[in-house]
Amino acid sequence: MAEPTAFDEAADEPGSARADRDRGSERAETRRGPERLEAFSDGVFAIAITLLVLEIRVPPAQDLDTSAHLLSALGALWPSYLGYLVSFATIGIMWANHHNLIRLVAIVSHGLILSNLLLLLIVGFVPFPTALLAATLGTPTGQIGVLVYAGTFVSIAVAFNVLWDQVRRGRGVLRPDVDRRSVDSITRSYRLGPPGFLVAFVAALINPAWGMAVIIGLVALYLLPSSSGA
Amino acid sequence: MAEPTAFDEAADEPGSARADRDRGSERAETRRGPERLEAFSDGVFAIAITLLVLEIRVPPAQDLDTSAHLLSALGALWPSYLGYLVSFATIGIMWANHHNLIRLVAIVSHGLILSNLLLLLIVGFVPFPTALLAATLGTPTGQIGVLVYAGTFVSIAVAFNVLWDQVRRGRGVLRPDVDRRSVDSITRSYRLGPPGFLVAFVAALINPAWGMAVIIGLVALYLLPSSSGA
Amino acid sequence: MAEPTAFDEAADEPGSARADRDRGSERAETRRGPERLEAFSDGVFAIAITLLVLEIRVPPAQDLDTSAHLLSALGALWPSYLGYLVSFATIGIMWANHHNLIRLVAIVSHGLILSNLLLLLIVGFVPFPTALLAATLGTPTGQIGVLVYAGTFVSIAVAFNVLWDQVRRGRGVLRPDVDRRSVDSITRSYRLGPPGFLVAFVAALINPAWGMAVIIGLVALYLLPSSSGA
Amino acid sequence: MAEPTAFDEAADEPGSARADRDRGSERAETRRGPERLEAFSDGVFAIAITLLVLEIRVPPAQDLDTSAHLLSALGALWPSYLGYLVSFATIGIMWANHHNLIRLVAIVSHGLILSNLLLLLIVGFVPFPTALLAATLGTPTGQIGVLVYAGTFVSIAVAFNVLWDQVRRGRGVLRPDVDRRSVDSITRSYRLGPPGFLVAFVAALINPAWGMAVIIGLVALYLLPSSSGA
Repeated sequence: MAEPTAFDEAADEPGSARADRDRGSERAETRRGPERLEAFSDGVFAIAITLLVLEIRVPPAQDLDTSAHLLSALGALWPSYLGYLVSFATIGIMWANHHNLIRLVAIVSHGLILSNLLLLLIVGFVPFPTALLAATLGTPTGQIGVLVYAGTFVSIAVAFNVLWDQVRRGRGVLRPDVDRRSVDSITRSYRLGPPGFLVAFVAALINPAWGMAVIIGLVALYLLPSSSGA
Repeated sequence: MAEPTAFDEAADEPGSARADRDRGSERAETRRGPERLEAFSDGVFAIAITLLVLEIRVPPAQDLDTSAHLLSALGALWPSYLGYLVSFATIGIMWANHHNLIRLVAIVSHGLILSNLLLLLIVGFVPFPTALLAATLGTPTGQIGVLVYAGTFVSIAVAFNVLWDQVRRGRGVLRPDVDRRSVDSITRSYRLGPPGFLVAFVAALINPAWGMAVIIGLVALYLLPSSSGA
Repeated sequence: MAEPTAFDEAADEPGSARADRDRGSERAETRRGPERLEAFSDGVFAIAITLLVLEIRVPPAQDLDTSAHLLSALGALWPSYLGYLVSFATIGIMWANHHNLIRLVAIVSHGLILSNLLLLLIVGFVPFPTALLAATLGTPTGQIGVLVYAGTFVSIAVAFNVLWDQVRRGRGVLRPDVDRRSVDSITRSYRLGPPGFLVAFVAALINPAWGMAVIIGLVALYLLPSSSGA
Repeated sequence: MAEPTAFDEAADEPGSARADRDRGSERAETRRGPERLEAFSDGVFAIAITLLVLEIRVPPAQDLDTSAHLLSALGALWPSYLGYLVSFATIGIMWANHHNLIRLVAIVSHGLILSNLLLLLIVGFVPFPTALLAATLGTPTGQIGVLVYAGTFVSIAVAFNVLWDQVRRGRGVLRPDVDRRSVDSITRSYRLGPPGFLVAFVAALINPAWGMAVIIGLVALYLLPSSSGA
């Protein structure tokens, strides 16, 4: 880290000295596409999804003495398996969504980089609430585990809307060949994310099992093919 | 995560407003190839294979006092080395297989994305059964370690068949220039995976060492060059 | 690792036997561009940024008994959250800076590879000072945590200047179409990095909270869009 | 993992049904280049190099009470810093070497895939001997730590020679435009690796500090620009 012009390249700088000098190759360079942003984001998604398994810990030595003990200890890890499953599916869906969104981008703006970094910040954080969920589910503090988990998903849904807003409203960010109807359709569907997970959060306030049920239901819903084709 | 249309782009949407408007560039975009799916999967394979080493732990401080103690403690880690070796080879083979399969894909369908995510879910899980194997092999609970390990491999073999089914049967998914004989040859060879590892599972029910021997034999077999060229 | 000619390809070897033989394809090969350097660096950045979450540990079992205990334990993790946030933002900015710098490179020199490896060495190290910061902030040893953290950032800023020097001064390294004004502008802004974080270091010598405040201020500053466009 | 034809694609299958049918596009597909092998290997190198930091552990709580204690505990971590430094440099050099080697490859053979997997197996293992070195250096068992570390490097040097042999001797593997002198020069330099690290191993048998000194000397040597240009 070394300069206050970190995101300089993202700027559309039509009147710069260099732009004047070398028009041809300059265009491809200054007006950069989202390829590098996408590659870096893909890396973070792939690593975060694969780190999830590190939170499933082999039972301690004292549970490894007899088969009965070990089987029971492995069974007691069910919150870890559930957390792995739900978080894996969620990050997988996020990755797919992120790609769908980024491929509508023509030019990467400063706001897009920042809101993408915000999204990755929360995506990269997911292993922690997943571990907390695994450690608390089915115990007296399970409610807090589910609340933190649902809260993380609310944040991700909000971050996706912020990112999408940067794509939609940024000058020249959205590809010109994307039509209004597609944009509106995405906007509508993204708007459902934050209230959806807020419902899970509120349900968890009443009963943690209900909160988990809502989360699982939402994730399952996202795994279905969309019916927006008509 | 923000919308119920997560995998929208995968759909073949010939009559959409955008398709009508921008025929040329739209084709390359809506009918997407498997490049991004492959890059993301590669990331998960590479990370899962590299995380395996984290399960080999340096002996605790009390074993570090004399050379004799340390050597004996390092020797006692043989199940960790074996697990690392077998799981590394397995994930490496899976990566090669996955590539061979994906390069036959013309268009990525929703079912393909889902069954690929299922496969990655199990691949990403491999470090856990590997750690369990390392913790139990050669102890009274070694049988459970081998059973879980063999069971994981059965699941992977099944997931590969599910993925291949999505490639074969999905409308337009398989590249049109792939001939029937190649498809049948792959189908036959994939069909051998689940029963093969089921044999390892059953052998482990009788004797965990037999189970491991079958697994090692299968992995060694997969490392051989195929004789299907004739 | 196997030979003393590790970075041979980076060398500009105009009189080699091979260069004489195969001029056309040789050029693209010997005079290699920075694509591979960039891909490897991107991987290290993406992994280092995602590993940060592993330093946020779920509270131990004794804090999981009641909701009050757990909430208080989660609250006590604030230094971990802060460290995650600041280090994530820092590595994200470094990634953006690194890209801006590398895209000015025409030919990868030996010095560039070495100074890039030095930078990655420190970037890959960031999770450790972050964990140390999280373990000490708000305790009697917090000052050391902040000093090590600020010192790491000073090192990174210095490494960026070393890397930039290799780009600027290396024979043929800088792309010929980059004009003098752009080079001078980057040089000026990079020069601010080391003294900036040195101020944070000195401030932490007086008061660790002041040191953290300077670091957070600098990182926030880097997140702003640059005003160098005029 | 699902079939005994894992590496089928690597084979040169001139008489296959598909080759007969679709000559044009088939060539690019069956006779595949090393791009995918390289991308997967790069991932493993980048992850292994970044995982090294996880072996540097924050001192335990009892050392965090006073600044004097913490400073002394941080100082006592010098074997961890040294291990991080040497292993980072080594993996970095291996990555550069690997790239130089792979870019001479025209066609990926089955033997090349296997020997590459063998190399990655050892590269991915490096964090373990590094952690063992860090845990033992400067203690009575330091000799074993250095021996295992040097032994790992001997294995890597041997694996590089095996890989290079696959490139040199495999039918059609080496690019036809690589001349004999370049091949011989690489062969000579690779041949020096195994005896070089064997010297470090033998030196460590006499005195662990001497062993480390030889290793550090070799790594420093590899970091120098090659003088083979003349």
